[in-house]
Amino acid sequence: MDASESPGVTEGVDALTLTTPGDGKVEKVPNGVEATEDDSDVVDPWNVASTNDEGIDYDKLIKRFGSSKIDEELIARFEKITGKPVHHFIRRGIFFSHRDFHTILTLKEQGKPFYLYTGRGPSSGSLHIGHLIPFYMAKWLQETFDVPLVIQLTDDEKSLWKDLKIEEAIKLAYENAKDIIAIGFDPEKTFIFNDLDFIGKCPAMYQNMIRIQKCVTFNQVKGIFGFGDSDIIGKISFPAVQAAPALSSTFPFIFTGKKPVHCLIPCAIDQDPYFRMTRDVAPRLGFPKCALIHSSFFPALQGAKSKMSASEQNSAVFLTDTPKQIKNKINKYAFSGGRATVEEHRKLGGNPDVDVAFQLLKFFLENDNKLEEVRVAYKNGDMLTGELKKLAIEAVSPIVEEHQKARKALTDETVAKYFEIRPLKFAN
Amino acid sequence: MDASESPGVTEGVDALTLTTPGDGKVEKVPNGVEATEDDSDVVDPWNVASTNDEGIDYDKLIKRFGSSKIDEELIARFEKITGKPVHHFIRRGIFFSHRDFHTILTLKEQGKPFYLYTGRGPSSGSLHIGHLIPFYMAKWLQETFDVPLVIQLTDDEKSLWKDLKIEEAIKLAYENAKDIIAIGFDPEKTFIFNDLDFIGKCPAMYQNMIRIQKCVTFNQVKGIFGFGDSDIIGKISFPAVQAAPALSSTFPFIFTGKKPVHCLIPCAIDQDPYFRMTRDVAPRLGFPKCALIHSSFFPALQGAKSKMSASEQNSAVFLTDTPKQIKNKINKYAFSGGRATVEEHRKLGGNPDVDVAFQLLKFFLENDNKLEEVRVAYKNGDMLTGELKKLAIEAVSPIVEEHQKARKALTDETVAKYFEIRPLKFAN
Repeated sequence: MDASESPGVTEGVDALTLTTPGDGKVEKVPNGVEATEDDSDVVDPWNVASTNDEGIDYDKLIKRFGSSKIDEELIARFEKITGKPVHHFIRRGIFFSHRDFHTILTLKEQGKPFYLYTGRGPSSGSLHIGHLIPFYMAKWLQETFDVPLVIQLTDDEKSLWKDLKIEEAIKLAYENAKDIIAIGFDPEKTFIFNDLDFIGKCPAMYQNMIRIQKCVTFNQVKGIFGFGDSDIIGKISFPAVQAAPALSSTFPFIFTGKKPVHCLIPCAIDQDPYFRMTRDVAPRLGFPKCALIHSSFFPALQGAKSKMSASEQNSAVFLTDTPKQIKNKINKYAFSGGRATVEEHRKLGGNPDVDVAFQLLKFFLENDNKLEEVRVAYKNGDMLTGELKKLAIEAVSPIVEEHQKARKALTDETVAKYFEIRPLKFAN
Repeated sequence: MDASESPGVTEGVDALTLTTPGDGKVEKVPNGVEATEDDSDVVDPWNVASTNDEGIDYDKLIKRFGSSKIDEELIARFEKITGKPVHHFIRRGIFFSHRDFHTILTLKEQGKPFYLYTGRGPSSGSLHIGHLIPFYMAKWLQETFDVPLVIQLTDDEKSLWKDLKIEEAIKLAYENAKDIIAIGFDPEKTFIFNDLDFIGKCPAMYQNMIRIQKCVTFNQVKGIFGFGDSDIIGKISFPAVQAAPALSSTFPFIFTGKKPVHCLIPCAIDQDPYFRMTRDVAPRLGFPKCALIHSSFFPALQGAKSKMSASEQNSAVFLTDTPKQIKNKINKYAFSGGRATVEEHRKLGGNPDVDVAFQLLKFFLENDNKLEEVRVAYKNGDMLTGELKKLAIEAVSPIVEEHQKARKALTDETVAKYFEIRPLKFAN
């Protein structure tokens, strides 16, 4: 899974594959053949790219994927049922799309159980700040709903897709887990697993993989993911591995009852194809369709249309960066919506919508009033790019610093606790 | 795996797929399209059929599969190194083909380690006598070489291919295991596992599956197994599951050293496509190519060209049949090579090569002299079909009876011992 990786990760855009809502038909075929419609955006689990400075057109994406917009009505119901304001990621449209979220709210209303599932494909040892988004959301949802959370690290996927040995992929999964744990998940309600170990420790998981693999044909994964005849067979059957955790019986040690438990998945929208497939299969196996809330993509420092790569040190703020590195990177590389000269900027104002420093604030500055002040000041020219970047640095630096402290404090025992196959505590 | 099932099993011959040696090119395409050459024989892991009364042309098959004939020279070397006569299955050409068996003999000669691997796809609760052949051979090889033996029950395969629920497939695997154990394998040197449980208990197995799935493309399994676009993704990736046990690191609890251990696979020749693929992949993963010895197919009662089906009570002698049922079945259904009338038979003689009663003796009558006497007497008309059938009944009945006794004596504890993940004892 790449739920946490996708924001900003847009590497390898040679295979242009656009998937359509529902029916899983392919609009673009793989191997670099261009799409006949909507050439500007490419969104699938391995590629995210746009030719537009403001990035992906998310309204179009909702239409294409057949999901639903997170609208005022949903937010109002959410706040009414939980009795607290929604997370600023939802308020600000960073999580902008959903499937069946109303069902989850109804379950909450009725005091019925459900669980959260998210994950990450561990392709690099060091996460960047964009990777935090779905996990921040998962943590907030876990606290808000008081439900169990399972986190899948798809080291098998990364071994299949990248030039990664099994042993290296497992090591990366373990390193990434530390970053995830440092975010502060409740150990009594959170189970973290990496496929290359867990599948060999839980017969229920492999059995569900087979159940799912029995319901999906090559034609279907070809349509949904753009796989071709020259793809390795590991890729072709992998979607079942990412689907299985959305069936509660995959975790018999957590869900001890016989009744299937609903599942809510916070993830970046590029992961939706996996769960469209899962939602198609689940009812045939006697399970409810998983619900989803989708995030937009985290912009690369060079701007929302350019690709951010974990292998390019200067395209992202890593969780391992020093305060000095963060300052330098944002000052030097963050795409600016400002004008060419100070005079022009004062006169015409900047464009916060394409300004990466402002986007960073949108993600990490919690205070709505402060954010709006900055937006207005930048837009009307009162605030210069340098000042805006300073604010972004001030917002990002302490987050990274705190994270490093929390990660450093982790012992192997603490990490092992999250990986332990065990019952979780939850109020149901 | 269907190593033990294939003798005589010729069900579902609608997909005509003939695979070529080495390069894995398909001579016949699936979905019922006829082959352009050699229309008489169909041999793949799911289909075995011939239009010839004497059954498959095995010399042609060796040529087509690119394997080697078990010849006098190999047998002589075998007997020299082991210091005992070869099994009558080898002497009589029932095991007729091999790959790299000389390598195994050299290892034996040098006192170097290797292990045996065979298996069965548990598609029915009751085995028939044909299913015994590869296991009899495995037992004899284990005793002769004093090496560990792993037996895979591919309940996942059967669940994917047949209309079998996961739970039912596991139950069949367990029932079949009892029949296998009743054959008398040394519990200290034999490990039996069913995929649907074992893969969830041994991370090394799943990790090797992924390693293999990374080396094989859809194009390749299409060529080797005849899979098509409308096949389920579980089928497409399954060959890796049958390949993994041929890599010794799949069993870290048995093979504790770091050095890869050679593997010898006794199986029916229809399973060869799996291991051609395995032999292609193994060196790329740092493992030696598995060696193989191939058996011919066990004839259906109705004759070597007709199909034997576990669902047709009268086409096979089951290990659950009573002496009376065996007698009736052989008398009533066993295809006869005799003449239309006694007079004609006395004058012209019978044809032992197509006579199923004689074939049964070839499999189960150990005494070579006695077998040759019968053959000559039948061929020159001294022996009538009724007499030959009586001999076949006398050969088969005690085997089935003994088997039933041994199976009945098995306790759950004994069975569990074979499934236990544990070190095996062997002289290396």
